Amino acid sequence: MNDISSILLDRRSIRKYTQKKVDSELFNDILTKGCRASTTGNMQVYSIIVTSDIEKKSELAPCHFNQKMITEAPVVLTFCADFNRFSKWCRLRNAEPGYDNFLSFFTAAIDALLVAQTICIAAEAEGLGICYLGTTTYMAHKIIEVLKLPSGVVPVTTVTLGWPAEKPDQVDRLPLEAVVHNEVYSDYSDKDIEAFYKSREMRSDNKQFVKENSKETLAQVFTDVRYKKSDNVQFSEMLLQVLKDQGFMNQ
Amino acid sequence: MNDISSILLDRRSIRKYTQKKVDSELFNDILTKGCRASTTGNMQVYSIIVTSDIEKKSELAPCHFNQKMITEAPVVLTFCADFNRFSKWCRLRNAEPGYDNFLSFFTAAIDALLVAQTICIAAEAEGLGICYLGTTTYMAHKIIEVLKLPSGVVPVTTVTLGWPAEKPDQVDRLPLEAVVHNEVYSDYSDKDIEAFYKSREMRSDNKQFVKENSKETLAQVFTDVRYKKSDNVQFSEMLLQVLKDQGFMNQ
Repeated sequence: MNDISSILLDRRSIRKYTQKKVDSELFNDILTKGCRASTTGNMQVYSIIVTSDIEKKSELAPCHFNQKMITEAPVVLTFCADFNRFSKWCRLRNAEPGYDNFLSFFTAAIDALLVAQTICIAAEAEGLGICYLGTTTYMAHKIIEVLKLPSGVVPVTTVTLGWPAEKPDQVDRLPLEAVVHNEVYSDYSDKDIEAFYKSREMRSDNKQFVKENSKETLAQVFTDVRYKKSDNVQFSEMLLQVLKDQGFMNQ
Repeated sequence: MNDISSILLDRRSIRKYTQKKVDSELFNDILTKGCRASTTGNMQVYSIIVTSDIEKKSELAPCHFNQKMITEAPVVLTFCADFNRFSKWCRLRNAEPGYDNFLSFFTAAIDALLVAQTICIAAEAEGLGICYLGTTTYMAHKIIEVLKLPSGVVPVTTVTLGWPAEKPDQVDRLPLEAVVHNEVYSDYSDKDIEAFYKSREMRSDNKQFVKENSKETLAQVFTDVRYKKSDNVQFSEMLLQVLKDQGFMNQ
């Protein structure tokens, strides 16, 4: 096993997996570690849906714009904000739950995301590869259908998991001083932005990316192709509707 | 250094810290590891505010209901969803950012939380102690004032960090089968709930907790004392107002 420093520093997202199954004992061990993550008031207001059946993964695939990882990865994990279980317990114990509101949704989402990341690190420490799928919040309503999520449960992120069949180059990150602020937030001057994004823009992979997309700048690849305003607006409305439908907007 | 399994399995939140400072080289190393966490489209739409000045921590304390940890911990980390930096870069590069909506806020919150949890694990691996503060989303508007967060930036969680001056008993967790579902969500019968919560309710610390709060059941301590509906409703309204004020509700 590698030491934790290299596990965290040398990591990269893995999108291609071998056919090898993830041993169930190892997998349970990883889940157990994940569930030791911090959780609000020890409420554990999250659920993890483990999908490995090929038919079920095929049903999930369109929810993630048919990215191949969903059907090819041996395991797909959907992490959900979940106040259903906790509220059921309250009702059984003569206690009236008051968790059908936005704050409670967000609390549960935090819980779910801390567990997700702990599971990812535990998995990577065993040599497994993971990849997060941002599509979960775009298509939450469809995922709710496929995974039969009841009221009080909303999917917040998805992770594919398996033994790596690739070792891609590590992507770049902004310099630490670009994302860390001392004492209070120090807002960015144009000069700061120039300095922080320069090496990212100069990378040949990013230059290639601009060219392939027939854009003038790398930023335009994000605003015009990858994360467009029109999509964001539409998905925002859909996600807020999901929160309402799942019973989290009764404040 | 301990191995990763025991770091993840034997962890507990630490609320009391020694006077010893956190060495800046070690701290930078931990932040660097954190910033290798997965991030949506490699946008890194988060910021980390590091507060260690005693006066600034004292200003933050009321935002966290004056929990002693804030002033006593050598370092307070406020993790923020941040589309300010990215949008500034877009505008400098002839690209029109479309990230003033709820979907973008939630995307940035996910980014911030994955970094937070990676930093916590990296810190714990070095023997440091951490504790999350759920108060961040209750008092986001006040934190924004104290930390001078501009439009496009919202605090989502806070972590105190330092060398442990305590080793509390490890709290319990629900059995794995209570939070993990196979293929699809299997909703809970009353019998399931009884089985999953039984050992938690039987613990002497939890029985003591019920007694101290003059309640009939452990669930009532949550619904009537710790996480009350009236508070949740009020904080929901406040948090949604913060999202509006910080420019994230223009869908």
